[in-house]
Amino acid sequence: MKIEGRNAVLELLKTEKTIDKLMIRKGDERSLGRIFSAAREKGIKVQFCDGKVLDKESETGRHQGVIAYVSEYEYADLSELTEGDSSGLIIVCDGVEDVHNLGSILRVAECAGAAGVIIPKNKSAQVTGAVVRISEGAASHVKVARVPGVNYAVDELQKHGYWVYALEAEGEDLYSSDLTGKVALVVGGEHSGVGALTKKKCDKILSLPLAGKVNSLNASVALGIAVYEAVRQRR
Amino acid sequence: MKIEGRNAVLELLKTEKTIDKLMIRKGDERSLGRIFSAAREKGIKVQFCDGKVLDKESETGRHQGVIAYVSEYEYADLSELTEGDSSGLIIVCDGVEDVHNLGSILRVAECAGAAGVIIPKNKSAQVTGAVVRISEGAASHVKVARVPGVNYAVDELQKHGYWVYALEAEGEDLYSSDLTGKVALVVGGEHSGVGALTKKKCDKILSLPLAGKVNSLNASVALGIAVYEAVRQRR
Repeated sequence: MKIEGRNAVLELLKTEKTIDKLMIRKGDERSLGRIFSAAREKGIKVQFCDGKVLDKESETGRHQGVIAYVSEYEYADLSELTEGDSSGLIIVCDGVEDVHNLGSILRVAECAGAAGVIIPKNKSAQVTGAVVRISEGAASHVKVARVPGVNYAVDELQKHGYWVYALEAEGEDLYSSDLTGKVALVVGGEHSGVGALTKKKCDKILSLPLAGKVNSLNASVALGIAVYEAVRQRR
Repeated sequence: MKIEGRNAVLELLKTEKTIDKLMIRKGDERSLGRIFSAAREKGIKVQFCDGKVLDKESETGRHQGVIAYVSEYEYADLSELTEGDSSGLIIVCDGVEDVHNLGSILRVAECAGAAGVIIPKNKSAQVTGAVVRISEGAASHVKVARVPGVNYAVDELQKHGYWVYALEAEGEDLYSSDLTGKVALVVGGEHSGVGALTKKKCDKILSLPLAGKVNSLNASVALGIAVYEAVRQRR
C-alpha cells in the first residue's frame, strides 16, 4: 500500500509500522527534512526521485513530494477494541462508502480518543492509501476492526456492556441523552443511512436538531458532533 | 451552471431559482418521478436523453440521471446576512479550498439554521455545481456572501455587533465559552488554517479538546462541532 502526502507519512513514521521504502522528490530534501531525518533515524531506505516518477507512482495525485511503501493496512480484531477500552467510546460505520467520509471519521476517532472504528467487509470503504492520506495520518494511530457485518458488531458490543446508539433521523434528542459510560455510535452511509435491522438492534436512535430544509448532515460531520457531545458530557 | 444529482436537483426545485432546462435519462422517468412532476408543475423544459448524453454533459461524473441548467450561483451581499439575522449565527470560511469541505459547511449552515456563510473571492473554493451537489442541495437554501477578503468581513461583522471567534489550536476551550448572542465562527482552510492577521482581529480563539496524536479535525467536522455547540447552548 502507498501512503502519500506529508502529514500522512509524518504520522506513519511516528508509529511502529514497517515502512519498506520511502520515495522523496529531488529538490524537496529541505522542505521534507523532518520526514527524511525521521526515516534515516529508523533506518528506512530512502530513494530520491524525479517529480515525474512520483507523479506516476501516485495513486491519489496528491503526493506532495513523498510516498511511503508499507504492507497492507493491518486491521484489528473487534476484541482489541473492547478489551481494556479506557475511553468507553467506539464508532461503527454502517455502509460508509465515501473515502472522504471514512478518512474524516478516522480523524474524529483519533482526536476524540475513541477506542477505535468498526467497518464491515462489504459495501463499505476500506482503509486504502487514499483513506490514510485523507485521514492526515490518523489511520496510523487509530484501531480499525473489520467485521463480517454490522449486526454482528452490535451484538458483540452489547455483550461487552456497550450501549449502542444509531445516529439517524426521528430518534431521541442527542442533547437530552446520556452519553457517558460505555457507548458505541453507529453512523450510516451516504446513500441509505443505518440499516433497518441494525436500527432495531440498537438501544436507541439519536438525532441532531435540524433547523433547515435539507434533511441531513454529511456522515462524518454528524458523527463528529455526536462524538464530541459525548466528550463534552464526560468532562 | 449545471446542478447534478437527485437530492441537489430536488432541493433546487423547492426554491424560486430559475431553471433553464432539465435533462433526465431515458428509462429513469419512474425513479425520477418526483423531480419530473415538480419540474412540470413549474413549467420547466424537460429533455429526455440517452444516458451517454448525460455522461458527456456531466461535470462531476455523478449525475444520477438528472442535470439541471441554471444561471450562475447568485451570491448574497454581506448585509443580507447581517440584516434581520434572527439566528445570530454566521460562518466565515478563511481559505477553505476543498470542494468537499465547502459543500459540507453549507450543509452545516443550513441544518443549524445559520444566517449564512461568508467566503473570500480568492484562495477559496467557490460555489460551483460540484459544491452544490456535495451540499446535497443545501447551497440552494443557504445564503453565501462573497467578500474581497476575510479581514474585511471580520470588521463588518464586529461593527454589526457580532462576536467573531476563530476555530484554531491553542485557544480557549470551546465548551467553556459562551456562544449565545450574535456569534460568527471563522474556520480555516485545509492547508494554513485561519490567517495570522484574521486571528488577531478575532475576539477570541476557540479550540476543541484533542486527545490524540494528530493535531486537527477536518475543517467541516470541526466547524460542525462548534456550530452545534452554539445550537446546544441556545436551546
